[in-house]
Amino acid sequence: SALIDIAVIAGDGIGPEVTAEAVKVLKKVTASEGLSLKLTDYLLGAEHWLATGETLSEETIQALRGHDAILFGAVGAAPGDTSIPSGLIEREMLLKLRFSLDHYVNLRPSFLYDGVASPLAHPGTIDFLVVREGTEGPYVGNGGVLRKGTPHEVATEVSVNTAFGVERIVRDGFRRANERPRKKLTYVHKHNVLVYAGHLWKRTIEAIATEYPEVSVDYLHVDAAMIFLVTDPARFDVIVTDNLFGDIITDLAAAVTGGIGLAASGNINMDRTAPSMFEPVHGSAPDIAGKQKADPSAAILSAALLLEHLGHVGAASRIKAAVASDIAMRNSASPRATSVVGDAIAQAL
Amino acid sequence: SALIDIAVIAGDGIGPEVTAEAVKVLKKVTASEGLSLKLTDYLLGAEHWLATGETLSEETIQALRGHDAILFGAVGAAPGDTSIPSGLIEREMLLKLRFSLDHYVNLRPSFLYDGVASPLAHPGTIDFLVVREGTEGPYVGNGGVLRKGTPHEVATEVSVNTAFGVERIVRDGFRRANERPRKKLTYVHKHNVLVYAGHLWKRTIEAIATEYPEVSVDYLHVDAAMIFLVTDPARFDVIVTDNLFGDIITDLAAAVTGGIGLAASGNINMDRTAPSMFEPVHGSAPDIAGKQKADPSAAILSAALLLEHLGHVGAASRIKAAVASDIAMRNSASPRATSVVGDAIAQAL
Ligand SMILES: CC(C)[C@H](C(=O)O)[C@@H](O)C(=O)O
Ligand SMILES: CC(C)[C@H](C(=O)O)[C@@H](O)C(=O)O
Repeated sequence: SALIDIAVIAGDGIGPEVTAEAVKVLKKVTASEGLSLKLTDYLLGAEHWLATGETLSEETIQALRGHDAILFGAVGAAPGDTSIPSGLIEREMLLKLRFSLDHYVNLRPSFLYDGVASPLAHPGTIDFLVVREGTEGPYVGNGGVLRKGTPHEVATEVSVNTAFGVERIVRDGFRRANERPRKKLTYVHKHNVLVYAGHLWKRTIEAIATEYPEVSVDYLHVDAAMIFLVTDPARFDVIVTDNLFGDIITDLAAAVTGGIGLAASGNINMDRTAPSMFEPVHGSAPDIAGKQKADPSAAILSAALLLEHLGHVGAASRIKAAVASDIAMRNSASPRATSVVGDAIAQAL
Repeated sequence: SALIDIAVIAGDGIGPEVTAEAVKVLKKVTASEGLSLKLTDYLLGAEHWLATGETLSEETIQALRGHDAILFGAVGAAPGDTSIPSGLIEREMLLKLRFSLDHYVNLRPSFLYDGVASPLAHPGTIDFLVVREGTEGPYVGNGGVLRKGTPHEVATEVSVNTAFGVERIVRDGFRRANERPRKKLTYVHKHNVLVYAGHLWKRTIEAIATEYPEVSVDYLHVDAAMIFLVTDPARFDVIVTDNLFGDIITDLAAAVTGGIGLAASGNINMDRTAPSMFEPVHGSAPDIAGKQKADPSAAILSAALLLEHLGHVGAASRIKAAVASDIAMRNSASPRATSVVGDAIAQAL
């Protein structure tokens, strides 16, 4: 039987709790589909750094490359924790993985499930996909500081955008839009202000649009996109955008679909030159860690995206259906423990 | 009697219509307060550029400097209009004014008026102020393109942040927070990724916080801020943030408080080395231009901010109260013409 070889990085805070449930569901679904599952745990994250000094070594990256895919929980210390330099783990571990393994498609589906209360009064039908660029833009770590700590300090951040990088993500956006019934692609930028990067995006969209005559394309400035995300999210089908705008849009999208407890994501290398990584959009939430309070749905849905990426579409659909039916029966008045939710979803498969 | 000398730039699209109502209200309130009002119209914007080729000349800037303040409508062509290079008017005229006149405080109050339907199911009490930096960050126009139009194109955008620029906006944020009953300042950035600019902001906040022991300070990553803006906007009192994040946050804030038809803003030079400029957050909305469909409230509230900035606090309060009482009586089933709304507010003064 086919072997699925997965690296598991549970991470910090609620990461291990929600990942345990995702693994529970993965085990159940693969067994019943006759697939063999091999899981290898990697200790990484803030706790691991405190214990060992490793953020993410070259050896670890090499080892991770040997797996089919990576299941990722969450990393990062509590906001006020001064024992860990702010942002260190996020940059030197999470982003380093995305960049090292060339995860250029940061895929974030947004779906309002039946039974979930949106903070919007009239949310309508929300079912769109954000295709966020994952390896360029303001995330490249380019920039610097001059005269640090003096009244003459100058700090710069450089957003780097390449034809190569923009083209592959735009192409991915068109391809996904073309596969969906509505075939609608919205690209989001701020090209009236960020002219250099913005016009590279604009020209690339216009060029690739000619290859997809059935896909209708529209453009929104990022500020206008904010408005539509709360006044008419049903208008979106596929959104393609840069790394930073995608970060901002997907948290808002998660919020309007009932919270980041349900939002899954894939960090995907479509060329398959390295394993892709699947993670909930939420962070490590140290304030509720260890209390079995976290909703494991986003982690479980991330496992479904993982199976989908590896070609096990049937297994992925079963997980998504089980999560949807569990969500439909939820009663917010009596929240269940993390593992109880995982059990229920595994049961419903 | 005191003379108020105002330059009026009505601009494009709905700009002239909404500005006419703001002028109507300004005339009425100044007359009844015994103030003299001098208005000088400046033709600028997309239409003006098409007719004359001027975006904003040095002579015009010099002339504008002679006034006490600028009342601004909206500028910009329709999205698909190819007769005007995309973003030209926004950059070479609107942003050029902000930069030339050193409008470093882009002040955007967010207030949910009684009688206004928020798209949020449970908006709570929304009453906060966004203090957006107006002269730095990714808006400086710094960056470039290498190998344009080839597969090896590289496009960069440089966000420039200075100690001088960050300190004066952070100081303004603290000062405003300190004057409000809740005395709460939230600064928004993405310092886990944008470390150079982010840490300059962080260090500046920490330094100035010591001068304002009564102001409580918290920090949110911009993505987390998105979530709170739709799940708990009542938590915000004063938000201080950079130019791009401020652009994004204020459109979302306008949306959750019932739409950009009500959102006013000031582009303020607190050192008074040049006139400040007041404008609705909305754009020129060419699709509804000339139809008396636009809500002039944001333009009228911008006129109130103008009077407040010039020290006419009583007159400003009267305008705000008149707008609030007009809004409370609105009936969305029978929308009124732009000028009818202006008349009603002038009447209610
Ligand atoms: C933790 C952080 C670096 C990360 C990002 O900004 O991409 C997170 O917000 C996300 O969206 O996955
Ligand atoms: C028109 C545009 C340049 C402007 C900005 O981005 O600042 C607008 O969106 C605003 O918020 O005033």
